Amino acid sequence: MIRIYDFKEGIDKDIYMKISSRTKLDNKEVNGVVEGIIKNIRENGDTALFDYTYKFDGVDINSSSIKVTKEEIDDAYKKTDENFVSAVRKAIKNITEFHEKQKQNTWIDFKDGIIYGQKIRPLEKVGIYVPGGTAAYPSSVLMNGIPAKVAGVEKIIMVTPPNKNGINPYVLVAANEAGIDEIYKAGGAQAVAALAFGTESVPKVDKIVGPGNIYVAVAKRALYGYVDIDMVAGPSEVLIIADDSANPRYVAADLLAQSEHDVMASAVLVTTSYELAEKVDKEIERQTWYLERKEIIKKSIENYGEIIVVKDIEEAFNIANALAPEHLELDIRNPFEMLGKVKNAGAVFLGENSPEPLGDYMAGPNHVLPTSGTARFFSPLAVEDFIKKMSVLYYDEGSLKEVSSDIIRLAESEGLTAHANSIKIRFT
Amino acid sequence: MIRIYDFKEGIDKDIYMKISSRTKLDNKEVNGVVEGIIKNIRENGDTALFDYTYKFDGVDINSSSIKVTKEEIDDAYKKTDENFVSAVRKAIKNITEFHEKQKQNTWIDFKDGIIYGQKIRPLEKVGIYVPGGTAAYPSSVLMNGIPAKVAGVEKIIMVTPPNKNGINPYVLVAANEAGIDEIYKAGGAQAVAALAFGTESVPKVDKIVGPGNIYVAVAKRALYGYVDIDMVAGPSEVLIIADDSANPRYVAADLLAQSEHDVMASAVLVTTSYELAEKVDKEIERQTWYLERKEIIKKSIENYGEIIVVKDIEEAFNIANALAPEHLELDIRNPFEMLGKVKNAGAVFLGENSPEPLGDYMAGPNHVLPTSGTARFFSPLAVEDFIKKMSVLYYDEGSLKEVSSDIIRLAESEGLTAHANSIKIRFT
Repeated sequence: MIRIYDFKEGIDKDIYMKISSRTKLDNKEVNGVVEGIIKNIRENGDTALFDYTYKFDGVDINSSSIKVTKEEIDDAYKKTDENFVSAVRKAIKNITEFHEKQKQNTWIDFKDGIIYGQKIRPLEKVGIYVPGGTAAYPSSVLMNGIPAKVAGVEKIIMVTPPNKNGINPYVLVAANEAGIDEIYKAGGAQAVAALAFGTESVPKVDKIVGPGNIYVAVAKRALYGYVDIDMVAGPSEVLIIADDSANPRYVAADLLAQSEHDVMASAVLVTTSYELAEKVDKEIERQTWYLERKEIIKKSIENYGEIIVVKDIEEAFNIANALAPEHLELDIRNPFEMLGKVKNAGAVFLGENSPEPLGDYMAGPNHVLPTSGTARFFSPLAVEDFIKKMSVLYYDEGSLKEVSSDIIRLAESEGLTAHANSIKIRFT
Repeated sequence: MIRIYDFKEGIDKDIYMKISSRTKLDNKEVNGVVEGIIKNIRENGDTALFDYTYKFDGVDINSSSIKVTKEEIDDAYKKTDENFVSAVRKAIKNITEFHEKQKQNTWIDFKDGIIYGQKIRPLEKVGIYVPGGTAAYPSSVLMNGIPAKVAGVEKIIMVTPPNKNGINPYVLVAANEAGIDEIYKAGGAQAVAALAFGTESVPKVDKIVGPGNIYVAVAKRALYGYVDIDMVAGPSEVLIIADDSANPRYVAADLLAQSEHDVMASAVLVTTSYELAEKVDKEIERQTWYLERKEIIKKSIENYGEIIVVKDIEEAFNIANALAPEHLELDIRNPFEMLGKVKNAGAVFLGENSPEPLGDYMAGPNHVLPTSGTARFFSPLAVEDFIKKMSVLYYDEGSLKEVSSDIIRLAESEGLTAHANSIKIRFT
């Protein structure tokens, strides 16, 4: 199924273009629809929100039923088993522990006559979007909610589209365990707009995070500036670098885990071993037949699955750095020694017992990662995405006087004489 | 000139809306033009870039003249005086010192069988946009370039539109002193697109920062995702909180410094003293007449200048937090004790000898700050804007086994059986 290249002549530009250009938000039709929804929600608040929820989700919501109640949460616990709850709690413990290490402190530096620094404050209110249907992932609630919690956000508000049976109980339990403060039954561009502007029922927030379909992504992008947003997530991807020490069963299983996400997902193996490439190819075929989502897997492997054989490990890292994959697995003898070669990746998984699903659910690092080559400049979702900084500056009279002529000179070089005046007036 | 409100009934929503809604990027005509430019640059590279430079800047550039040479920089030094150079050097020293304190380290945590952490790397290439004409500010070169330099960016590339006389010598000197690696004569949306995609002459970068006109702002926003961008800067603003201890001459001068930027700039005084309000009002009139940019100042004061008298200092902070101003000056008796009341602001200036121009040019904190109320969720430009992080994760076999059943449970609750398979296959 996967094509085997004997690839010794540098990075294949076609593969790069194919994988890095999967994200497209330039759908004019979607843009138009989203624009209309945003305008309507901004002008008509709840009325518009309830109309859309009826139209798109087929559920009749009003101001007394839009907010998830304690009873609904209790009911969700009854629908999930204890093992699920205990797994969620273990995940929360690990994710919290990792993110606690990201916390930064306000700092102030005192010199004689001069004080400066940066004050840090958590965002006040944050909205988390959680998709409905088959993409309702409890792990996504944890990965978006916990960094906000650790940052000290005062109010974390979740929105998720309802269906006739209410909301996915796994999602509700995860939200409750993670300490989400309020949950509203709303989805799509209308929920994003409601969070950005506030309605009678839904509070206005400072930032909106979380994955969603094209309408949600376009709405977030359109409202960027009114609120902050997280990265626009593209289809998921993994790149595995393996040498001849790698276990082909594991490598194949990890590629398949990636490709089951959706038909746009990409799974790439770069290896120095032609023998491993052939074995992995066979294993992919063998394992695919027993996996539930085999139809999706077959398509995504066909579209964006690759095995690339390279002449040495150096070239493997060159390819990885050029693709800047969301997930990078190093299934090689000495992964730690090689870590310095990694320039661009969202998350790096070292050795054969650190498969990507370990990071998706349990280990602690965030699974919200830059996709489609954006690891060149974006970072994993983190506590710092839920804080803001303010500069703080104090000069006493003597210290200001000492730099006054330099400030005046610079201001005048820019033609900003009122700036110069603001200094001059203090010493005349 | 400034309207005096006796304002004791909470925050005036009209003022809030007026000041926070000055930023508008929804100009359909501009969007269309920029879209065309981006497409043309992407497809035709240098040819398109030179055509636009001739069309928009009236300068005939080719591949051998687009890059600023050492001779051109030497020439710029001849056109500026020594005092300017020495002021730039002092500013660079202070700005570097402040930003050095923002540096973060890669961290790794070792437990028994588990290793995780976050690896930090500077962005490889960064582009800085510097406007031409009267908005060619050397201070802007320093404030955008130095954090990138401190972060360890390998190549910092500046673009700025040329005119018939070349490039503003102050800007060239500042760029050279700040260690900008390459400077290209290109401006507008075409320069932004050239940086995003690369042309035969201009290198492709990972991030584009720096202020620009509406075409530059729209182009940056349109290319977000292909490259990272900084905040979209709106018109500048200051809010001064003053009590009866404040010097009306200083307060007026600081309001005027802000309002000279452009007719959209906003200068707001919130004070507990009606007497001060009246004196500041008179001072504004007195000082305006002798300032060079008085026509701009009059219009911006007329449009977005306000004096608000409040019943107590608590209310002053409520108004400031609601407006989330770019610059907040605390001209009050005890500014340090009050710092804890500041929730939303880009930069806070404490006491009467810390006027905003001190921060614009000399003190060290960055002058690229969130505008139009976005200090609710955005932070000043910083070293962290020029780095990226990667998660790093290692589990040994025993550690993975210990959490394997929990991972499988969570994966299955999401219907992702290939994720579960990737764990199962390692223990069967």
